Amino acid sequence: MKLFTKVAIVGTGLIGGSIGLSIKKIGLARQVVGVSRHKESLFIAKKMRAIDAGSQSLEIIKGADLLLLATPVELISKLALQISKLVSKDCLVSDVGSTKQEITSGLDKIFPNFVGAHPMAGSEKRGIANASADLFNGSLCIITPTKKTNKAALGQLKLFWRELGARVVLLDPQSHDKILGFTSHLPHAAAFALMNTLPRQFMKFSAGGLRDMTRIAASDSRLWSGIFLSNRKNILPAIALLQKNLSALVSAVKNKDRKLLGEILKQAKIKRGSLIGTQKSLVF
Amino acid sequence: MKLFTKVAIVGTGLIGGSIGLSIKKIGLARQVVGVSRHKESLFIAKKMRAIDAGSQSLEIIKGADLLLLATPVELISKLALQISKLVSKDCLVSDVGSTKQEITSGLDKIFPNFVGAHPMAGSEKRGIANASADLFNGSLCIITPTKKTNKAALGQLKLFWRELGARVVLLDPQSHDKILGFTSHLPHAAAFALMNTLPRQFMKFSAGGLRDMTRIAASDSRLWSGIFLSNRKNILPAIALLQKNLSALVSAVKNKDRKLLGEILKQAKIKRGSLIGTQKSLVF
Repeated sequence: MKLFTKVAIVGTGLIGGSIGLSIKKIGLARQVVGVSRHKESLFIAKKMRAIDAGSQSLEIIKGADLLLLATPVELISKLALQISKLVSKDCLVSDVGSTKQEITSGLDKIFPNFVGAHPMAGSEKRGIANASADLFNGSLCIITPTKKTNKAALGQLKLFWRELGARVVLLDPQSHDKILGFTSHLPHAAAFALMNTLPRQFMKFSAGGLRDMTRIAASDSRLWSGIFLSNRKNILPAIALLQKNLSALVSAVKNKDRKLLGEILKQAKIKRGSLIGTQKSLVF
Repeated sequence: MKLFTKVAIVGTGLIGGSIGLSIKKIGLARQVVGVSRHKESLFIAKKMRAIDAGSQSLEIIKGADLLLLATPVELISKLALQISKLVSKDCLVSDVGSTKQEITSGLDKIFPNFVGAHPMAGSEKRGIANASADLFNGSLCIITPTKKTNKAALGQLKLFWRELGARVVLLDPQSHDKILGFTSHLPHAAAFALMNTLPRQFMKFSAGGLRDMTRIAASDSRLWSGIFLSNRKNILPAIALLQKNLSALVSAVKNKDRKLLGEILKQAKIKRGSLIGTQKSLVF
């Protein structure tokens, strides 16, 4: 099904590249074009057939009926004004940023058909070389409409992500940032801090637990600086609560309070036990 | 190669059961007997052929030339005196506890041939039902001799773990507990605290990052209460350092210091990048 005539992807990295591959695989658009600051990225994207044509200049996006902003979060708002001069008012505009409040409040004013989205399908890997046509299959895509959102545009974007295999769920941008502050940004903050806490010479005496826990500490530092700064309002109280829970554990150990300590750990264990089921519980 | 005539395993859970299965698979002993408080565990252990015979009473260990204590850490020291009355002075005695200082200082006094060990091959799963003959294949086993350790006993235990496929490394008990406080106990503490920080109703909006980071929060709460209390001395300063690193991240975000924040995250990313290689770097 050809949902679109020309899809333009700005930022042909892991997410942008995977979107291109998926669109081409399913045949959702007649043409996919890509924009990147990096020649190399465009070269690989073309070679992988994630895009039909690529350019370092934004001019190539002209005539798109779907424009996807897939750059690091801090660039999305920066590029918006320039992009608005190149696409028609009818163009459906969306993004894939990990924070939504800052982006949607800015882009809502610039594009008549903007709908924010956050496909939760990244990993600590990045770049077009890691892109895959199946990245979104079975993944969660949070779409964040506001009062200003055009209902037809929202419907089209939902359809688009469902065609890519994602389970679509709607949240307002404020709730998105609050929730993701806990479920995504906080774990990343904890992983970065944990990694910085480990004496390098001790690292060889470790096993799978440490490996799994710090996997996301290998995430891109620039990308994540942008996410933390953009979601300052929510990540700071989330970290404060983590500090409080670490202190509760410290107290119980200091006081040799085996009963309290056991209860703290058991509470965590029970909650973790329900995580996998909970992740699959969203019904659409 | 029959290294032993009769191996007695006290505690037929994940680790004890896997040791039994490995011994039987390789044919390292003529007989393997198991002790557990749980009838069910003994029944499964026998059915899986992890042990030839099992009992809820310690009497069954009589005549063993290798005795392995594979109970939660706080029980190891408690059972030692009773066990010492049942095994001969020549019996090689070892354990699989995750902390070593408390255990070795106690058991060194009780058994002439005690050598502490910590096979780093557990997981968040527990119990005989999860045991596997290949659990130790390629894993790290830290053996912790002291000044009192009999050299012949040490040699025998090294040989034993190598036969089970483990890469054996020696550390004194103090260093073991300090290092593992950072590389194993701290990640567990962080995972438990992180899990307790997450509002339950937010959990469904999460993905692989959170799943991997909190896997070890599903670890047994009693087992880990014992480990934290036994390694109080080292886990407390390790948690304090994690708190400090979280606070550094908080400051950078509060001050919108993109440069400092980027450096903090990059440092973590680079260190994590070397983790996998470092884990494999121990040469024996």
